[in-house]
Amino acid sequence: MKTCKVLLLGFGVAGKAFARILMQTREKILAGKGIDVLVVGITTKSRGCLYRPEGIDLAEAIRQLEQSGRFDPDQPGYCRIDSLAAAQEWEYDVLMELTPMNIRTGQPAADHIRAALRRGRHAASANKGPLAWHYKELRDLAKENGCCFFFETTVMAGTPTFNMVESCLQYCRIDRVEGILNATTNFILKEMAKGVPIGDIMQRGREQGFLEADPSMDTEGWDAAAKLTVLMNVLMDAGLTPDKVDRTGIGGITEADIAAAKARGNVIKLMCRGEKDADGRITATVRPEEIPAGDVFAGEDLAGVYSLYTDLMGKLTILQYGLEPAQTGYGVFADLCRVLDRMAR
Amino acid sequence: MKTCKVLLLGFGVAGKAFARILMQTREKILAGKGIDVLVVGITTKSRGCLYRPEGIDLAEAIRQLEQSGRFDPDQPGYCRIDSLAAAQEWEYDVLMELTPMNIRTGQPAADHIRAALRRGRHAASANKGPLAWHYKELRDLAKENGCCFFFETTVMAGTPTFNMVESCLQYCRIDRVEGILNATTNFILKEMAKGVPIGDIMQRGREQGFLEADPSMDTEGWDAAAKLTVLMNVLMDAGLTPDKVDRTGIGGITEADIAAAKARGNVIKLMCRGEKDADGRITATVRPEEIPAGDVFAGEDLAGVYSLYTDLMGKLTILQYGLEPAQTGYGVFADLCRVLDRMAR
Repeated sequence: MKTCKVLLLGFGVAGKAFARILMQTREKILAGKGIDVLVVGITTKSRGCLYRPEGIDLAEAIRQLEQSGRFDPDQPGYCRIDSLAAAQEWEYDVLMELTPMNIRTGQPAADHIRAALRRGRHAASANKGPLAWHYKELRDLAKENGCCFFFETTVMAGTPTFNMVESCLQYCRIDRVEGILNATTNFILKEMAKGVPIGDIMQRGREQGFLEADPSMDTEGWDAAAKLTVLMNVLMDAGLTPDKVDRTGIGGITEADIAAAKARGNVIKLMCRGEKDADGRITATVRPEEIPAGDVFAGEDLAGVYSLYTDLMGKLTILQYGLEPAQTGYGVFADLCRVLDRMAR
Repeated sequence: MKTCKVLLLGFGVAGKAFARILMQTREKILAGKGIDVLVVGITTKSRGCLYRPEGIDLAEAIRQLEQSGRFDPDQPGYCRIDSLAAAQEWEYDVLMELTPMNIRTGQPAADHIRAALRRGRHAASANKGPLAWHYKELRDLAKENGCCFFFETTVMAGTPTFNMVESCLQYCRIDRVEGILNATTNFILKEMAKGVPIGDIMQRGREQGFLEADPSMDTEGWDAAAKLTVLMNVLMDAGLTPDKVDRTGIGGITEADIAAAKARGNVIKLMCRGEKDADGRITATVRPEEIPAGDVFAGEDLAGVYSLYTDLMGKLTILQYGLEPAQTGYGVFADLCRVLDRMAR
């Protein structure tokens, strides 16, 4: 029996969802792959940190956070440590980068991942920042050190994307991607189309937890631009950064615009489009567009959607439903499964 | 450098499409995985067979078939042999089962696959018959012999399905599948909705090569039932056979039915639905249903679509476009890639 020691940097929505899935599957993983997965470390910015080489009781850790908003300082293994120091000093096999995204730099998350890879540890990131700004460097660093570096959940949560392309679309050249990659603006536009006042929409989004106090990262299209960047860098080797994306948010969209689109049989969506032409020239845009109401991209119940255009397999479209944190957790878990498959060989 | 010797049983649409993709990718595979893929054998029922341990010139083999409808009997390696005998006697690493489907028994294709697996050779099947009738036996036989047994292209051609679930949805329980799995009836219903007379539709389908001389396997829902069976047996361990599916074809659908549906804002599609309830009870139906015109399943340009309902990842929908033989060939190629990844370890 092997063990796989996991370090979680961050323990918010994604971290807790991942922990819940791991609790459900740990026995099956042990039986199927012969590997016991132990979460040995959890860091948070203001809620304390835990380091227990024999494995943390995840149910208890979640209970403490939910009951008192922090880890209990009186338990064995409680400490306060910077995430970077934990990545550099603690003993683990896989680092999970789950800290909040800094869209302008990808830091400090990129440093956390660098620290793991330089030590020969595998890394998985739910954080788009490092991918959007430093993908190529991190990919090459992982390769040099013989490590895995996965990031399935960065685009459309656990919906199969990067892992799917790598395992199921081998040797396909991808020339074009289209998608609706930001679920929050998709929700806002859908509610506006129903006639709900924008103030009410924002309040409900904040209450339900998927709208940030400052929603500009979503409404100005930064989040969508970051996801398009990640898609294009990974699938097309585009060498983009989010600031190079031709970006228009939904801030200028009024109820009158939506009504006018509807009169034309259309709905407004924040579309992401990326293309690499035959000469290797890259174009990448994020902007509100009118989509025919019957189109696959216009679905009211969609959380996200993307189409890939390939040379060998034609066009492929994948739809995501629901805005469940569980799906984000599943994407992180899927990355862990790939690491385990590698360790099991 | 390793070599991987491939035996193709059947060299029709799927076999030629696979061969074309292999010609395009052989050098890249050698560079990337360190394995040289050689097609060493091709069997056909009435066009002759080829066996060349040093590798067949695929471009030349395709040229001969297209020019004279058969392999040139005067070339080295030309022979006439039964596919089963080739599977039992020839030297190869991977058998590709590409012979025409017998929907009522899955034979003789199942025997071809058994012969390969019993000899410890990997097998991939583009033929739904063996999967629909003998999946569990063949899966277990592959496992006992330490071999791969893949079949990506049997449902929605090369669109990621079985390989995707296995690599990207690990530990998800799938409770329900829905889909439009037969592209031919989808095409017929679409043309009927445009008002094209059924005789004209059938003639065009035959001319374009995707409608059999006897289209009853499609129009009576047998092909869809076989695909639903494969999906459910593989993804839900349903233990179904096609004759157990509650099946209604599109033969009874009239232009008046389609017009009446349209007046209600609906389109008629041949829907496949499968479910496993909490007690493990299986239900599987194929029947024409009215679908709201704006629904994802109603898309005019779709070749196929399926939704999976999972416990850990919620609902996932994948759409296939185009009816290109290349996509069928790609599914077979994707299975080969998985075998190569296993051989490369």
